[in-house]
Amino acid sequence: MPYVNIRITREHGGITAEQKKQLIEGATSLLKDVLGKNPQTTFVIIDEVETDNWGIAGESVTERRKQGE
Amino acid sequence: MPYVNIRITREHGGITAEQKKQLIEGATSLLKDVLGKNPQTTFVIIDEVETDNWGIAGESVTERRKQGE
Amino acid sequence: MPYVNIRITREHGGITAEQKKQLIEGATSLLKDVLGKNPQTTFVIIDEVETDNWGIAGESVTERRKQGE
Amino acid sequence: MPYVNIRITREHGGITAEQKKQLIEGATSLLKDVLGKNPQTTFVIIDEVETDNWGIAGESVTERRKQGE
Amino acid sequence: MPYVNIRITREHGGITAEQKKQLIEGATSLLKDVLGKNPQTTFVIIDEVETDNWGIAGESVTERRKQGE
Amino acid sequence: MPYVNIRITREHGGITAEQKKQLIEGATSLLKDVLGKNPQTTFVIIDEVETDNWGIAGESVTERRKQGE
Repeated sequence: MPYVNIRITREHGGITAEQKKQLIEGATSLLKDVLGKNPQTTFVIIDEVETDNWGIAGESVTERRKQGE
Repeated sequence: MPYVNIRITREHGGITAEQKKQLIEGATSLLKDVLGKNPQTTFVIIDEVETDNWGIAGESVTERRKQGE
Repeated sequence: MPYVNIRITREHGGITAEQKKQLIEGATSLLKDVLGKNPQTTFVIIDEVETDNWGIAGESVTERRKQGE
Repeated sequence: MPYVNIRITREHGGITAEQKKQLIEGATSLLKDVLGKNPQTTFVIIDEVETDNWGIAGESVTERRKQGE
Repeated sequence: MPYVNIRITREHGGITAEQKKQLIEGATSLLKDVLGKNPQTTFVIIDEVETDNWGIAGESVTERRKQGE
Repeated sequence: MPYVNIRITREHGGITAEQKKQLIEGATSLLKDVLGKNPQTTFVIIDEVETDNWGIAGESVTERRKQGE
């Protein structure tokens, strides 16, 4: 009964429902393939975080995107 | 000083302030009753997650709701 | 399909299996009673954290316990 | 490669981009100064939580603010 | 720069280093394939949780294992 | 009433109680200085994660340390 939490930045309006579906399917398959975990009780939760609220290397992702990174 | 994080799907416009209040009261009482934890320093945080962003059994909750589950 | 994460300090050797059971039952019932959530897909995860690793009011819980708090 | 998650209530329209920047810089410096962690692989994620969704002492922060706390 | 947190129960002495490696590789590839995320700044953190500390359907996983589930 | 969760790898036997104290003090001060948050209700929780269980760039930290990174 795994719990998988995927946190990503929300950019360009966010990812699509199709991409979310692929993340859910992929993470569920991964746990089944590697550990034999039952998909029926595998949770996958995706958190989209504003770029102002995510920092790396001491800067927000908003600042990094302005610098072309 | 417990920290309780309740994550649920946001459905039909989300849960009411009254329901949130009941979750906060209930979780705080539970920690007090079972472990003697002081309510003054018990945190309860409720995260409401879009149904597209929550997967179970390899599908998003959005898809499951369409199928009547 | 709620996910409930309860984080507490590990003190005096930790809580008992019976207390963990009561937390799991209580949190599951709370979600069922307040929001009608299905217990079959309610997860409750308890994290016990060393008192050195938990801070409140700028001090570790280890230090606070020494001061009789 | 630390991961720092700061969860705060969203009040008065939320904190500013400048304040978020200071939290990101401060948390990254803290990990570098205390543990020598490389800022290039230090993540800081800020979650702003509605006051209805955050409970302390068995009440939501919304209720507490009404009482002047 | 995604953050992926995989929480699973610790059973039969825990999963192997090889299985952890496969989870890390798989989750990193998933984020790259679906969203084009850079592996260099993709974190994957695996939490193994004691079966007494994980509840589903109102029971601990320890109890469920005894019942052959 | 902020909640700060610092996740780091456990290396060379783990960080010292003194370092934990500095992280707790530093994070609490940061929230007070930047946002005026009350230290009395600021939680700081440090999670130390085994290097096998932490991945970056598709590899575990254990593997990276062997390669001198």
